[in-house]
Amino acid sequence: MTAPRAPIEVREFPVPELPQGGALLRTAFSEVCGTDVHLWHGRLAGVPYPIIPGHVTAGVLERSRGQARAIDGTAINEGDRVVFFDVHRTCGRCMACTVNRTPTRCASRRVYGITDSATEGLFGGWSQAVYLEPGVVLAKLPDAVSFEDYIGGGCGLLTAVHGIERASIQLGDTVVVQGTGAVGLSLIALARIAGAGTIVAIGAPADRLALASRMGADAVLDVERTTPEERLQRLSDLTQGQLADVVIEAAGSAHAIEEGPNLARNGGRYVIVGHYTNVGDSRINAHEQINRKHLDIRGCWGSEAGHFLRALRILERHARQVPWNEIGAKTYGLHDLNAALAEAEAFTVPKALVEPNRSR
Amino acid sequence: MTAPRAPIEVREFPVPELPQGGALLRTAFSEVCGTDVHLWHGRLAGVPYPIIPGHVTAGVLERSRGQARAIDGTAINEGDRVVFFDVHRTCGRCMACTVNRTPTRCASRRVYGITDSATEGLFGGWSQAVYLEPGVVLAKLPDAVSFEDYIGGGCGLLTAVHGIERASIQLGDTVVVQGTGAVGLSLIALARIAGAGTIVAIGAPADRLALASRMGADAVLDVERTTPEERLQRLSDLTQGQLADVVIEAAGSAHAIEEGPNLARNGGRYVIVGHYTNVGDSRINAHEQINRKHLDIRGCWGSEAGHFLRALRILERHARQVPWNEIGAKTYGLHDLNAALAEAEAFTVPKALVEPNRSR
Amino acid sequence: MTAPRAPIEVREFPVPELPQGGALLRTAFSEVCGTDVHLWHGRLAGVPYPIIPGHVTAGVLERSRGQARAIDGTAINEGDRVVFFDVHRTCGRCMACTVNRTPTRCASRRVYGITDSATEGLFGGWSQAVYLEPGVVLAKLPDAVSFEDYIGGGCGLLTAVHGIERASIQLGDTVVVQGTGAVGLSLIALARIAGAGTIVAIGAPADRLALASRMGADAVLDVERTTPEERLQRLSDLTQGQLADVVIEAAGSAHAIEEGPNLARNGGRYVIVGHYTNVGDSRINAHEQINRKHLDIRGCWGSEAGHFLRALRILERHARQVPWNEIGAKTYGLHDLNAALAEAEAFTVPKALVEPNRSR
Amino acid sequence: MTAPRAPIEVREFPVPELPQGGALLRTAFSEVCGTDVHLWHGRLAGVPYPIIPGHVTAGVLERSRGQARAIDGTAINEGDRVVFFDVHRTCGRCMACTVNRTPTRCASRRVYGITDSATEGLFGGWSQAVYLEPGVVLAKLPDAVSFEDYIGGGCGLLTAVHGIERASIQLGDTVVVQGTGAVGLSLIALARIAGAGTIVAIGAPADRLALASRMGADAVLDVERTTPEERLQRLSDLTQGQLADVVIEAAGSAHAIEEGPNLARNGGRYVIVGHYTNVGDSRINAHEQINRKHLDIRGCWGSEAGHFLRALRILERHARQVPWNEIGAKTYGLHDLNAALAEAEAFTVPKALVEPNRSR
Repeated sequence: MTAPRAPIEVREFPVPELPQGGALLRTAFSEVCGTDVHLWHGRLAGVPYPIIPGHVTAGVLERSRGQARAIDGTAINEGDRVVFFDVHRTCGRCMACTVNRTPTRCASRRVYGITDSATEGLFGGWSQAVYLEPGVVLAKLPDAVSFEDYIGGGCGLLTAVHGIERASIQLGDTVVVQGTGAVGLSLIALARIAGAGTIVAIGAPADRLALASRMGADAVLDVERTTPEERLQRLSDLTQGQLADVVIEAAGSAHAIEEGPNLARNGGRYVIVGHYTNVGDSRINAHEQINRKHLDIRGCWGSEAGHFLRALRILERHARQVPWNEIGAKTYGLHDLNAALAEAEAFTVPKALVEPNRSR
Repeated sequence: MTAPRAPIEVREFPVPELPQGGALLRTAFSEVCGTDVHLWHGRLAGVPYPIIPGHVTAGVLERSRGQARAIDGTAINEGDRVVFFDVHRTCGRCMACTVNRTPTRCASRRVYGITDSATEGLFGGWSQAVYLEPGVVLAKLPDAVSFEDYIGGGCGLLTAVHGIERASIQLGDTVVVQGTGAVGLSLIALARIAGAGTIVAIGAPADRLALASRMGADAVLDVERTTPEERLQRLSDLTQGQLADVVIEAAGSAHAIEEGPNLARNGGRYVIVGHYTNVGDSRINAHEQINRKHLDIRGCWGSEAGHFLRALRILERHARQVPWNEIGAKTYGLHDLNAALAEAEAFTVPKALVEPNRSR
Repeated sequence: MTAPRAPIEVREFPVPELPQGGALLRTAFSEVCGTDVHLWHGRLAGVPYPIIPGHVTAGVLERSRGQARAIDGTAINEGDRVVFFDVHRTCGRCMACTVNRTPTRCASRRVYGITDSATEGLFGGWSQAVYLEPGVVLAKLPDAVSFEDYIGGGCGLLTAVHGIERASIQLGDTVVVQGTGAVGLSLIALARIAGAGTIVAIGAPADRLALASRMGADAVLDVERTTPEERLQRLSDLTQGQLADVVIEAAGSAHAIEEGPNLARNGGRYVIVGHYTNVGDSRINAHEQINRKHLDIRGCWGSEAGHFLRALRILERHARQVPWNEIGAKTYGLHDLNAALAEAEAFTVPKALVEPNRSR
Repeated sequence: MTAPRAPIEVREFPVPELPQGGALLRTAFSEVCGTDVHLWHGRLAGVPYPIIPGHVTAGVLERSRGQARAIDGTAINEGDRVVFFDVHRTCGRCMACTVNRTPTRCASRRVYGITDSATEGLFGGWSQAVYLEPGVVLAKLPDAVSFEDYIGGGCGLLTAVHGIERASIQLGDTVVVQGTGAVGLSLIALARIAGAGTIVAIGAPADRLALASRMGADAVLDVERTTPEERLQRLSDLTQGQLADVVIEAAGSAHAIEEGPNLARNGGRYVIVGHYTNVGDSRINAHEQINRKHLDIRGCWGSEAGHFLRALRILERHARQVPWNEIGAKTYGLHDLNAALAEAEAFTVPKALVEPNRSR
């Protein structure tokens, strides 16, 4: 990606020399997520174009200098299937990292596929090989998890693991998920895995809602064919008037913010995890929607190494029951990336995958 | 108060017969709070006019049937200075009371001065005597606390104790309080008592800001003479660009809601405790103000017996240093209540007090 | 149960007259839990013998005076399958109920089968009919849940729901459960339902461990055939040396308390929920087991209406996958209760059930 | 300190060359804390003797290579009074640092005065100059805080700030502090600053209890002249039988652990922060002291940069009211360090200070 709105170019780079502790990954899959579309639209500040996009990526360890190790200390050897946490640096010393304990807001945070120029190295997954710099958090992909499962979850799964943590789901809680994109679909599955009672998904279109049901939703409401009043009524009917203990926003729409608090019970929680870009303002009534409701609203930004590790544990146990591999429905080679971006821009599939080493 | 907007009438009632466990309080002071103005404007639904207003009230125990006891078990005797928690009934059995642990949202909640008709008994403080029904949470006013201190804090102090609980203040936190009415002033004092570092108050007019300083604010910003941008800049200067760990809204204005999140640091907390009535919508940007900020927003409704008890403990220890008695600046007898309401409506004093037994 | 250690006697009582809001339940099943054995041993203070034991109980609504309603407001009619929360009164006004928010420690707490004399009414499940006094928290048993599922979970399930709440399980957490009695078995199932990763059960004998596996444990360790050092080593092997994020004690043994902290990781949680009676002291090293480990230890007493409600929601969704009905393996009629108590005392089955209306 | 139990030797080292971002501090004061006595007794594993002890230290910036900056970004210049966080490295990548969020348990943690050999550089405060390596968390000592205030608080104050965070003190809480050493005395002051109600200190001897009162205790109990039963009775009398909401252990005695839970109310918190070395086992009754009490016990290890920063904010605001400077009562030069250690070993003063640059 050489510049905003410019066509993706395929370039060749020399094989990097590895420092002690560094490694090289032969890419199996990377993904096109919403952030990549924003990158292409030039909506993120300070991006050092040209970049190699692709932050969440999986592959096979091709070479390492020194014994590679997973975050939990287990050895990783050449030929192992490997995944890594895309945030490769936070400073560990600033107010955000230490005092405020919000490492996702560290000003020095570096993320594969976003913050590093292609001139600095192979820091992105839309490439046949990815440079794993010393200190990157690594893990072996568990045997029970296919590349397709992992990349189907992808960055949306990590975002969703953080969102579920912020949601503090208790056993039997009624949960509403607004949005049936990659993040919303993972949230539905994770809410079910976390012991929720009734789960209601709000989204569109019909095939996405069908997938939402397969991910674990008990009821699905088409946001394009129902009014907010009808959705509130439906939720009320499903819960004997109690409404939702937890509502999680993963829709990225200003309207969702206006509707969400109304779906939560008094003293409930509303987690906002879908607004990774600015889509405009929402109108909120502080008296009716927050103060009198005694509502908790919790923003949720980025993810941490712990969310990456928990995502792997969850996939290991549940990937056979939960169709994460259906999220990444369509796969593109390096020479089709402009089509992949167009598809992602148009939301026609939940997620487009990138398979840089496939024979064309 | 016979009906919305009707003049207050002074009526005589027979001395009530007391059931076992009931008591009669000779009123020293009650107050005119914002809720009383709302009652007079007819903005609360389901109020059984005629009512005797006055929810937070202090007095002397005139008579009890059976030994009266404080919530902690100590005996209360005739002649003792007594205060009581104004929420005299919650059901203890509904979803709100038990499952959701939000007793302030119990549908059966009964509050002195608001929910009980004058035809049912002396359930309000704008009366020479108040009936204390069996089970009301009672306490002796500590010797170190004057009636003026207690009623100066009044219902705003209880609201503020709950607000501070929701704010989870840590030692040294920077705190912004929006609003310098009765609730805001108590919040400033309580934030200081809870170990805050820098405290910044935003309000008006000048004499209220001067009182805010005496309550414990390190800096005061006149909301009428500064722009939101100037206030943000000032806060940034005071905190080396770190902004506030906690912002607490006690202004009751739609603009305050729009400004508040901008004053909080990433990962901070925003407590909304000032919107006890609907003043219209606010415009919020979910991306910039909540999601990317990783912000917690916490609505806070009503107060519980624990907040009442903690308020007394705080007054006992701090009433000599903190000028709570200056909040209740002006006192009215029963025959001047229409003037008191007019004064409260016009916000000319932080709080008007009612002294039903004073000689005129 | 006329007195400690005395044989159980079968007595007849008149059919009670119902006050407004009261109801009568025709008992399907009650249970013999550990508390009943303690009652029989006379180990609980202040029990008003003679009593009708049996606190958790299920049956069919035989008669009600006025429309009976579940806690969420749904109507309950004669002939419906009904369950109720066994804590039928807390005061709602004391320090425990309000200020400290620990209603399970309310001094006025009344529990079916324990705190009410048989002379006062049918307050226990070892009876063909149970009196449901006005205000008891009721619920319909969901259609998907059999009486056997519900009573197999029984009071151990409610205790376990509270224990899991105290454990704050995060997705993918490694969990150790000490004890494979009725509480431990439910904890295993609930940890799985709450999204735990690896679950390790410690208990005995072999058939109980086999049931622990069916409830959801990934690994089981026989407490009688392994040493604490072997168990620690095994856990370490299973977790790449990371140990458990959460350890939950449901063994009721002093040794379990000594071992538990060693199984938790630094900064982990240790929930103690199995010591409902005094079995003697444990030796703890505060430096190694608490302070340096930065460990959280959380005692957990009794359960609240919310835990009852959540238990029902969980049973509704999971009773087909989780063999709760295998916990209550053996059933007794009213005339076999001495045998049932002997069996419970000897721990030969996870739980003995009582079926008062069965034809002999 | 060349080896355990060996006399302290005074050695000369060359002035270090500074890398980019490094700095040199001219020491004003360091301290002799309990850890230094443990180091001298050889009770910590893996210490690379010879070492320069002295972890918490204050001084004047003598020289820096590149602009030195405080953690909040403010510039620090030569001649400024400077303090630094003694934990100079954690890895930021291991399970403890990221997944478990317990950086004080990072296996790579490096602490001035403990983990670095004197052969590696001036990594301790018992030296005329201290090397501040790049990345050390720095701060200017606020103008209102004297060196004596800061070092009087010293490492005990940082430990206490973390302990108070773990204690979750609410406004008006009754707090018991076990122990009146450097940590206990700071805990008393911080509990008061955090808004506690009644504070009771348990310790000895008489002059230490007198200092405890000046730090903010309402009542002091001499642990050598009262029995545990008498102390429980006294606490009960002071609290109308309610006991303490929070008990904090800073005594480092096995007996304190046995007594502490009895002083807490049902549902209260017990923070264990005084067992930095192994003094043997304690006997605990899980039924009476944890399970039935529904007690939270929270171990607390080390401190983080945030605690360091909060300590400075607190000192800035409260050092004039709280006599922290009285804790560091006695001062020693480099040639008297053996006497200082002996004094610290014998507990004859709350804390011995080290003043390396004083003229003898």
